[in-house]
Amino acid sequence: MLLVFISSVSLHPHHLFEYDELSQYVDSHQEEYVQTLRDWVAVESDSSDVLRRPDCHRMMDMTAEKLQAMGGKVELVDIGVQELPDGKTVALPKVVTAQFGSDPSKQTVCVYGHVDVQPAKLEDGWATEPYNLTDINGNLYGRGASDNKAPVLAWIHTVEVYQALNIDLPVNVKFIIEGMEETGSNGLDAMIVAQRDTFFSDVDYIIISDCGWLSRRPALTYGTRGNCYFFAEVEGPKQDLHSGVYGGTVIEPMTDLIGILGEFLTSLSDRIGKILIPGIREAVAPLSDEEWKMYQDIEFDIESFKSKIGVSQLMYSNKVDLLAHRWRYPTVTIHGIEGGFSGPGSKTVIPAKVIAKFSIRQVPNMVPAVVKKQVTDYLNSVFAKRKSPNKLKVTMIIGAKPWLADTKHPLYEAGKAAVKRVFNVEPDLIREGGTIPIAKTFEDVTGKSIIMMPIGGFDDGLHSQKEKMSRYNYIEGTKLFIAYLHEVAHLKKD
Amino acid sequence: MLLVFISSVSLHPHHLFEYDELSQYVDSHQEEYVQTLRDWVAVESDSSDVLRRPDCHRMMDMTAEKLQAMGGKVELVDIGVQELPDGKTVALPKVVTAQFGSDPSKQTVCVYGHVDVQPAKLEDGWATEPYNLTDINGNLYGRGASDNKAPVLAWIHTVEVYQALNIDLPVNVKFIIEGMEETGSNGLDAMIVAQRDTFFSDVDYIIISDCGWLSRRPALTYGTRGNCYFFAEVEGPKQDLHSGVYGGTVIEPMTDLIGILGEFLTSLSDRIGKILIPGIREAVAPLSDEEWKMYQDIEFDIESFKSKIGVSQLMYSNKVDLLAHRWRYPTVTIHGIEGGFSGPGSKTVIPAKVIAKFSIRQVPNMVPAVVKKQVTDYLNSVFAKRKSPNKLKVTMIIGAKPWLADTKHPLYEAGKAAVKRVFNVEPDLIREGGTIPIAKTFEDVTGKSIIMMPIGGFDDGLHSQKEKMSRYNYIEGTKLFIAYLHEVAHLKKD
Repeated sequence: MLLVFISSVSLHPHHLFEYDELSQYVDSHQEEYVQTLRDWVAVESDSSDVLRRPDCHRMMDMTAEKLQAMGGKVELVDIGVQELPDGKTVALPKVVTAQFGSDPSKQTVCVYGHVDVQPAKLEDGWATEPYNLTDINGNLYGRGASDNKAPVLAWIHTVEVYQALNIDLPVNVKFIIEGMEETGSNGLDAMIVAQRDTFFSDVDYIIISDCGWLSRRPALTYGTRGNCYFFAEVEGPKQDLHSGVYGGTVIEPMTDLIGILGEFLTSLSDRIGKILIPGIREAVAPLSDEEWKMYQDIEFDIESFKSKIGVSQLMYSNKVDLLAHRWRYPTVTIHGIEGGFSGPGSKTVIPAKVIAKFSIRQVPNMVPAVVKKQVTDYLNSVFAKRKSPNKLKVTMIIGAKPWLADTKHPLYEAGKAAVKRVFNVEPDLIREGGTIPIAKTFEDVTGKSIIMMPIGGFDDGLHSQKEKMSRYNYIEGTKLFIAYLHEVAHLKKD
Repeated sequence: MLLVFISSVSLHPHHLFEYDELSQYVDSHQEEYVQTLRDWVAVESDSSDVLRRPDCHRMMDMTAEKLQAMGGKVELVDIGVQELPDGKTVALPKVVTAQFGSDPSKQTVCVYGHVDVQPAKLEDGWATEPYNLTDINGNLYGRGASDNKAPVLAWIHTVEVYQALNIDLPVNVKFIIEGMEETGSNGLDAMIVAQRDTFFSDVDYIIISDCGWLSRRPALTYGTRGNCYFFAEVEGPKQDLHSGVYGGTVIEPMTDLIGILGEFLTSLSDRIGKILIPGIREAVAPLSDEEWKMYQDIEFDIESFKSKIGVSQLMYSNKVDLLAHRWRYPTVTIHGIEGGFSGPGSKTVIPAKVIAKFSIRQVPNMVPAVVKKQVTDYLNSVFAKRKSPNKLKVTMIIGAKPWLADTKHPLYEAGKAAVKRVFNVEPDLIREGGTIPIAKTFEDVTGKSIIMMPIGGFDDGLHSQKEKMSRYNYIEGTKLFIAYLHEVAHLKKD
């Protein structure tokens, strides 16, 4: 594939005029956009909780209806069922596809996004109701506001603005919006494979806006980590027991679990963040001199990073090590333990079954299937040494690959020009510690080039309490997408 | 104190007659008693959850009203406030005291019980609503049914039955009923001290029925373990963080917590249940030959114990070791971790603050204040080695002493006679792995003798899902208490 970027396009007077008109339209419709975001955030589309599945279905319907009302060619694609741990099945949220324009002389971009969210409860420490979008000093607080509902809406507004002003879309725009991203995009891979020669056949580029900037400077993202998410379940007695009455007689599942996690962490991840489980470190691609230089050039203030998250000390005290371990080295996190007493107060219980939830972020050249085996074998061997009568079951419930793009690709050059037009600065070129597993799938299945163009703020609090999207990023982000379609239109069609 | 047991009392014809009449009355009022228990179980008097404190207050009021309606001299004693971790205070449930009869020529017994309960939620794995008493094949399922609402009611019914048949109570009967037992009887010690020379001045014996039998054979209990309940809190970032975005840069509190618990368990409690923390094992009273012989004689079927709790292997395979480690050696249990992701499904979060809840059961001659220092020092030293910027805070929220009685005491001889009369067998003499902290306080403050006379079944599932009280134990237990008052009446007054 040979693509030539025509750099003069951003100076074309006709386009400049249109951009201003489009941009002013966005500014004057800000309240309407915020209200739509409020309606979307109000739907508790938590894909990790099957009890919320009806909300996820409703969220997909709302997305489809919105795109349909705009005159898009919309489909709700059935992607089958999800198998639950107890063997039952539950329908997956359908995937929404949409198409605006089919001019074969134009480029065709496909925007990927998701409208499911992470769990959130007021009592987790939110200052506002997580599903009631609340504006505080220009920040819009709500679960899913930044990850990923506002960016999806910004892309939708982009099409709406062109339509409202009767300006032809400079490219054909397709959408693929899913509802299972937060739990590993269950069912989406197969759907992409199935539609490779239909929906994806005329797509030239794929755009993903499911990430955030590194600082106040806009950024383009060229890599993401993958994620292998594990459940380690230890099961013992057939029901919870009184710790006074049975303590001392029963071999407690929690003791086994903490025991193997303790060994796991001792040998898996020491205080300076190395993962020592056999085979994992060996698989990590070495840091090149060029990469080191890139990291060195990135604007990143360690002190403000520390103060933002409220810690006195980080894993590394220099910028390159810190960014490298955030983006291009693996890490392990224990998220919590299900099955024990996790409420406030005290309870003198011996839990019968406990499940540790932990994940290992994947980087090139780690392979999820191999990591699954390495972790499972290791935990089983550590557990076997305990000679416990309890049962250990290790399952990998998410196995998402990392993704890496070439920052010299014309898609990225077009991105730089769009950022320059809207924000009048050069973007940072960054990677993402989090996972957007679908990037790798798009690349492997469709062979198309991908760009990640974030509009989320660096301090949006994804997955944590107080997630927000600023009005500034939402509105200027919409303008960025409008500008980007212009830039992409002038890439030479393959 | 010299007490002589007159063994011929159980053959006294007048008493035999009365017993039959009293016993028949109990049988014919079974449904009424079950309904009262249902009303009491319906109150979610979970003392560990401050949000349920209004239910605890209501439960104390209901208890007082019941005793008042029977003509008792009742008081609701204010025992002050509870300080919460955030520095706020909340009123403690009042303590109910009551008195039936004040004949100075009679013995005076004081029955202790509690009407607060452990936490319970349907989704913990209950087959029935935990606060809706449900009769399945003669078993009455509900939180608090056996621990301790039915035994308290059985004592109340005992007085009611004498009253209903116009038979003089053979002894004066006092009640002291509290609502904070499950979280360490906060405030009760001070109240007992304060009323030593008033309410307790004419009390001869204290009776506690807050435990269960070991098998289908009725039992008398002569010892309980104490409990030191700890919170180990590790606090890091100021809010939860996305594990993809921040993993690798932040020193995670959960890693620190699992790390110190892992070391703690490795050195504190190995696979065969020894606690190796410096000083703890040294404090445990050695097992005497006489004790060994007593354990040897107890009827206890290890196979049915295993099958009841659903495990293939226990900590010990012989009866004496098993019972000794259940009753007279310390043990440690990790109950759970608060603050992590403990729901079903997956969440890619780095929890900002996590709190491990664990407890160590106390035995003679361990001292809670000393254990507190041993555990705190040990965890702090292990944590210091990690050089983590996170903060560890170890607090002991319950520090309850163990208790041990002399099985040759006339109170126990009277108990054996009552069991013989109602069940026509000799009782097992057992200890209790759980904690009834107030026993030690009663002994230390009032100097009175104490007996523990359980009526709970061996399979009642205290503190776990599916707690129940059988109709048989509830009804025959009431008869046991009726018979026991006769026996105590004939002990020589001190």
